[in-house]
Parts: sequence; structure tokens; C-alpha cells
Amino acid sequence: MSPETPTIRTEVQVMFFDTDCAAVVHNIAYLRFIETARTYLAEKLGMGLRDMARSQVFPVVVRTEIDYKRPAILGDNLVVLGRLERVERSRFWCAFQIVRSPEETLLVESRQMCAVVQMPSGKPVRLPADWAVRYAHLTAKRGDGTGGEA
Amino acid sequence: MSPETPTIRTEVQVMFFDTDCAAVVHNIAYLRFIETARTYLAEKLGMGLRDMARSQVFPVVVRTEIDYKRPAILGDNLVVLGRLERVERSRFWCAFQIVRSPEETLLVESRQMCAVVQMPSGKPVRLPADWAVRYAHLTAKRGDGTGGEA
Amino acid sequence: MSPETPTIRTEVQVMFFDTDCAAVVHNIAYLRFIETARTYLAEKLGMGLRDMARSQVFPVVVRTEIDYKRPAILGDNLVVLGRLERVERSRFWCAFQIVRSPEETLLVESRQMCAVVQMPSGKPVRLPADWAVRYAHLTAKRGDGTGGEA
Amino acid sequence: MSPETPTIRTEVQVMFFDTDCAAVVHNIAYLRFIETARTYLAEKLGMGLRDMARSQVFPVVVRTEIDYKRPAILGDNLVVLGRLERVERSRFWCAFQIVRSPEETLLVESRQMCAVVQMPSGKPVRLPADWAVRYAHLTAKRGDGTGGEA
Repeated sequence: MSPETPTIRTEVQVMFFDTDCAAVVHNIAYLRFIETARTYLAEKLGMGLRDMARSQVFPVVVRTEIDYKRPAILGDNLVVLGRLERVERSRFWCAFQIVRSPEETLLVESRQMCAVVQMPSGKPVRLPADWAVRYAHLTAKRGDGTGGEA
Repeated sequence: MSPETPTIRTEVQVMFFDTDCAAVVHNIAYLRFIETARTYLAEKLGMGLRDMARSQVFPVVVRTEIDYKRPAILGDNLVVLGRLERVERSRFWCAFQIVRSPEETLLVESRQMCAVVQMPSGKPVRLPADWAVRYAHLTAKRGDGTGGEA
Repeated sequence: MSPETPTIRTEVQVMFFDTDCAAVVHNIAYLRFIETARTYLAEKLGMGLRDMARSQVFPVVVRTEIDYKRPAILGDNLVVLGRLERVERSRFWCAFQIVRSPEETLLVESRQMCAVVQMPSGKPVRLPADWAVRYAHLTAKRGDGTGGEA
Repeated sequence: MSPETPTIRTEVQVMFFDTDCAAVVHNIAYLRFIETARTYLAEKLGMGLRDMARSQVFPVVVRTEIDYKRPAILGDNLVVLGRLERVERSRFWCAFQIVRSPEETLLVESRQMCAVVQMPSGKPVRLPADWAVRYAHLTAKRGDGTGGEA
């Protein structure tokens, strides 16, 4: 059996407040689309929104990389495709693609590194122990380059 | 047959970016939820987003009234219920309620007066002639108080 | 000596993220401009941001009325003029005008009713006792119409 | 004489709408702070906002990298320090640091690659010819690694 890779697919239609006066979606708006996808992906990973509100344990974005390839416009139907990409001891990477539906044109690619913290102290929380087993195929190996922990 | 009143129902789950450090949904975020509902309501009224992007004829908000009754928090499932409330010669009012699902607690009530304008001139455009017939029951009568045109 | 009416004046230049694809400032963006002004007005009234973050006692918006009269565009220099308009036992109204600088064209008018609450309970907090004296000229009289408390 | 490196310094105080329910500034809000700095930096480079609105020639963000190091909270006074970092034939990189004032704690670091486009076609526009001379010290050399054009 092939190993499990958590994925998510969310949809959004471009509203006026997503666009700017260049008549395309504003670069910051895509990060809201991605946050919605990341939040539902986190829910699949066991971090539900209502639990977070109660426990004050939150996944936080530590680094974002985002490439804008083609613009979206008002009324476009967008699909955000996300997946857990890599797991470290106390951090994980998610990868996202935003495509225009129905023709699946790639508009945006992004990667985000997240940590889990206990608020309000901001103290990092270790990732669940079973992640190392469940997502062993996504675990960083020694010497595999950028993004790894020392 | 009872007259037609265009209505809309949209759903949204509260994300981190909708909340603020008082741990509740920020007052401005509700207006994004309402804009999404209003946009789909406008689509039902014949003003589709893609057509607008092409024709540069847009409905614009002229006045917003919004009452905040109870707060929503992270993860809440919200339903926006909108309807065309009143039709004037060149303006129309929409009314909205935001309720928490599933128990239907009323959180927010809002009314927005809209006009239709041709951009970039900003010149007002008359509402479609058939609205006076289709939405006759929503048409302002002389002397019926606030919000009417002179 | 004439009685004191707390006022505020803030400035903002219109950025890309304030505009939408109709090439004008989006209706929601003005509420951010107003919130900044209201926050500095609250500071003048003794409710400083850093104190709020610590005490979790916050002024919250209970109702917003906003009229959009003329549009602003990218690069416009806007001035927000705010003042304490009316004081009730546990609520107060602020009034705002947004004008384009330097010619002072009126673009937006708004009124917001605020309450002060202790979070996370959301329990209302009485306004400081000395407000009734300091702002006696802004205090609601019985029978003076809309917006008053029973 | 040492060569000119265009720089910018902007200030912003953290408002409620910049924070989320983890009681810190939301990751997306920092990108608004950076956009304001980038916009004023672009103005220094000869791309004024009002000219852009007229000419429909805009700098657009092609890639963003942002590292979140320490959180800001409500009321913090933040300083955004930006500079032109690198110039290519048709693209340029800007680098930003966000520090908390007055103690200059580094909170956020970001780099953005921008192109200049003619809207609505989206066709790239060559950077002004004199940039290669004025910013020769920021010009990409052959074989100097990531971010260069083929």
C-alpha cells in the first residue's frame, strides 16, 4: 500500500474585494485563498478550528514562498490544490497550486513552512509523534538540502 | 401567484484572517461575507461577474447600515441570508442577515443601498425597465418614508 | 469656556490593495481608514491600544452607517476627520468624514455606535463616570430621537 | 562616490484589523505593510501612483519570499525598511525588513521580485534604460546563481 499524503481541494470565485485597479486579483488576495485551503488541510491533520480556538494551540506560518504566473480576474472560478509536502521534527511544509477552472491553467504556486505553537506564550509544540510514521515518506532526510533543520 | 422576491443564501466558515485579537470576527470581515452574498444576488438579478468585468457596468454600494448583535468566533459556520428589499428608479436596497449554523442564532443584520454605474465615468445607469414590473411589490411608494427618492 | 469635543484627524494615501477592478477604492477599504481614525480617537478618550491588549477591555462597534458620495482612486491623499458625537450610559457614537486632500472634497460620511466590553466574556463595561461631565454637551437627552437608549 | 541604492522607510502602528485570534499580527497583514513600503520605493524609482493609474503601467509582484521571525501585537509601532536589491533586464528585486520600534527587534524579512507590465494586456515593459547605469552595482552578473534570467 502506498503511503498516505494528506491533500486538500478548495474552490473560490473571485469577488470585487479580491481585485485591484489593475483589473486582476491582488497578490495578497491569493494568500487568503491559500489560507483557507491550509486551514482545511490542517483540519485533516487533526488540527480543527474549534479545538484551536479553545486550546490556543495554533499552526503558524513561518515562511511563505509564492510565485505569480498568470493573473486571475473578476468572476474566475479558482481551485486551490494543497498537500502536505514535507515533515520535520517540529515543522512541516505545505505546497499549493491555484488553477483556473475548468481549464486547469496554473496561476499561482506557493509553499509554506508551518510550526505549531501554544499561545499566548508562542512556545513551539512538537508535532504529533505518529506523524513520523504516517508521513515517513515526507520526512526530511539528512543532507537533502534547503529547508531542513540542523 | 405571489410576486417574486429574489433571495440568496451563502455559507462561510470563519478563518483566522476573519478574526482579531479580541478573539471574535472583526467587524469589517462581515462585510466581505455580505459582499459575496450580494454578488451572487446581483447575479440572480442579471448582473453576472464576468459580464461586469467586460462591460464595466457595476452595481456599487451607496450606503451600508450594519448592526452587530452577537459575535462569531474561529471555526463558526455562518450563513448569509440576503434578499432584494426595495426597488427605486435608479437604486435598490438589499437586506442581509448573518446567522450561526446550525442553531440559526442571529449575529448581524445589514441593509445596503446600491446604484448601477458605468465605469470609468461613474455615470449612473437606469435599472432594467422590467424590474418595475417584476418587483412591483418591492417598489417604493410615494410618502412611505426613509430611503425613498425625491 | 466651550465644552471639549474630542476629535481626530488621520491621513492615508490610497494603495493598490485599497482599490478594486472598477478602478476606485473598494467600499470596505474605507472602513479600515475609519477604524484607524477611531482607534486614535479612542486613545484620546483614554483607551490606548497597548492597554487594551493587556486588559482585554475593548471598544467594539455595535452599528455602522456609511454613505459613499464620491469615489477615491489610486494615489489619492485622503484625510479622515473623526469626532465623538454623542455619549450614552454605556455606548457612544463617533462621526467621520473622509475628504480628498488638498481640495477637501467630501467622499464618505460615516457614524459608528460603540460599546466597551470585557473579553473574552463579552460583558459590557460602563463608560467612565467622568464622561457624563466632560462630554455633557454630547449626552443624549430624553426624547431626542433615534439611537437613544430606552 | 559610492553608488546609489534606493531605500525607503515607512511606519505603521498595528490596528485591530491587522491581528487575529492568536492575539498576534496575522501573517497576511505584514504584506500590506510591505506593499505600502514597496509602493513608496517604486515612487522613488519613478513609478508614481497617480501616473500608474493614468498610464496603466504597473509594477507587479512576480514572487514573494517572507520569513516570520517574531510576532507583533496590537499597538506595536513597526518600521518597514525597504531597498532595491537587484536589477535585471526586465525584473527587479526589493528586500524588506520589518522591525519593532523603538528597540529595532527584527520581526519579518521579505524579498519580492517585480516586473513592470502594461495593463490590461499584461505585456511586460522593459525597465528604464538608465537603471543599468544608475544601479550597475545591483545588476545581476552571469553565473551568480538563483533569481537570474536565462
